[in-house]
Amino acid sequence: MQYPAPIAKLINSFTKLPGIGAKSAARHAFYVLDMNEADVLEFAQNLINAKRDLTHCSICGNITDSDPCIVCTDESRDRSQVLVVEDTRDVMSMERMQEFRGLYHVLGGVLSPMEGTGPEDLNIPSLIKRLEDETIKEVIIATNATAEGEATAMYLSRLIKPAGIKVTRLAHGLSVGSDIEYADEMTLFRAIEGRREL
Amino acid sequence: MQYPAPIAKLINSFTKLPGIGAKSAARHAFYVLDMNEADVLEFAQNLINAKRDLTHCSICGNITDSDPCIVCTDESRDRSQVLVVEDTRDVMSMERMQEFRGLYHVLGGVLSPMEGTGPEDLNIPSLIKRLEDETIKEVIIATNATAEGEATAMYLSRLIKPAGIKVTRLAHGLSVGSDIEYADEMTLFRAIEGRREL
Repeated sequence: MQYPAPIAKLINSFTKLPGIGAKSAARHAFYVLDMNEADVLEFAQNLINAKRDLTHCSICGNITDSDPCIVCTDESRDRSQVLVVEDTRDVMSMERMQEFRGLYHVLGGVLSPMEGTGPEDLNIPSLIKRLEDETIKEVIIATNATAEGEATAMYLSRLIKPAGIKVTRLAHGLSVGSDIEYADEMTLFRAIEGRREL
Repeated sequence: MQYPAPIAKLINSFTKLPGIGAKSAARHAFYVLDMNEADVLEFAQNLINAKRDLTHCSICGNITDSDPCIVCTDESRDRSQVLVVEDTRDVMSMERMQEFRGLYHVLGGVLSPMEGTGPEDLNIPSLIKRLEDETIKEVIIATNATAEGEATAMYLSRLIKPAGIKVTRLAHGLSVGSDIEYADEMTLFRAIEGRREL
């Protein structure tokens, strides 16, 4: 005996999501059966709307429902700084901090020879094009502290520096509130390396 | 800065699923943006179809796309045994075993005074009605080995036994392949209590 087709198909759809195995997918599918119909319709509509109405900003590559996005069109922001991140969620994290008032550039990934991701697969050409604009004085590279993130940062730095634009990288070190005892070696090494005079 | 409305709404829909927090919901929503449009439309359609096309079998309470369900209408099954489970997924687990050839009855939950679930909230009246049929000789209670599952089993047993129908409960003990060293006290107690002569 198999699950009835409608639920089997829904379970299959859920298993396509990242980190959802067969058991979680079944749990979600049965949960949907217990939801009221209006909520299920809304869920379905939200899936379709998100896919249809969202696009990437033609300037910074961020996800947006209006092109150019609200950051790129915000005249109150500092147009001399561009913070380069891997994806949209990183922009959201930066914005939550409420301290950075410059612009963003979303790469849409990192360079990864293993996965066959080269510079042409990322929003690097559009970044270079933006830099031709003389208002940009500093590019802050905020890729993650992974091997690929570091390699991407190095690549961008070599590409941008010759144009006479300042290139910086986010500081790496101990998290605020963390315990030295539990810090990994790489983090400690970066914390020592990046030490500042008091 | 907030997420654009279409993605914020989709994240919100995902957070309604069991065990999905804000971070996982965002991860799923962004994953949906990267899926191809046909897959997203299929996902949305599967949600709607599962909600609209599935119903509960009027005999056993199991989820089905045809009423009565394929188990209840299967003439090859043993109509003298009814296995009582908490929900549809338990039926699927039993069917995977491929050894039980009787019928099922899905309660749709367990008695829980804490959550205000009484006998009238479960498919207990329909079970009693089925038992009036003289072909049923044994009711096997397969509620989970939780406090509520046990209480439900006791309640059903007291309700059914006076009608002269045999009431049994699944055996509890050590899982096959498990290590006694790691078994919890209750499981060991049940294993001792339910020991069989070799």
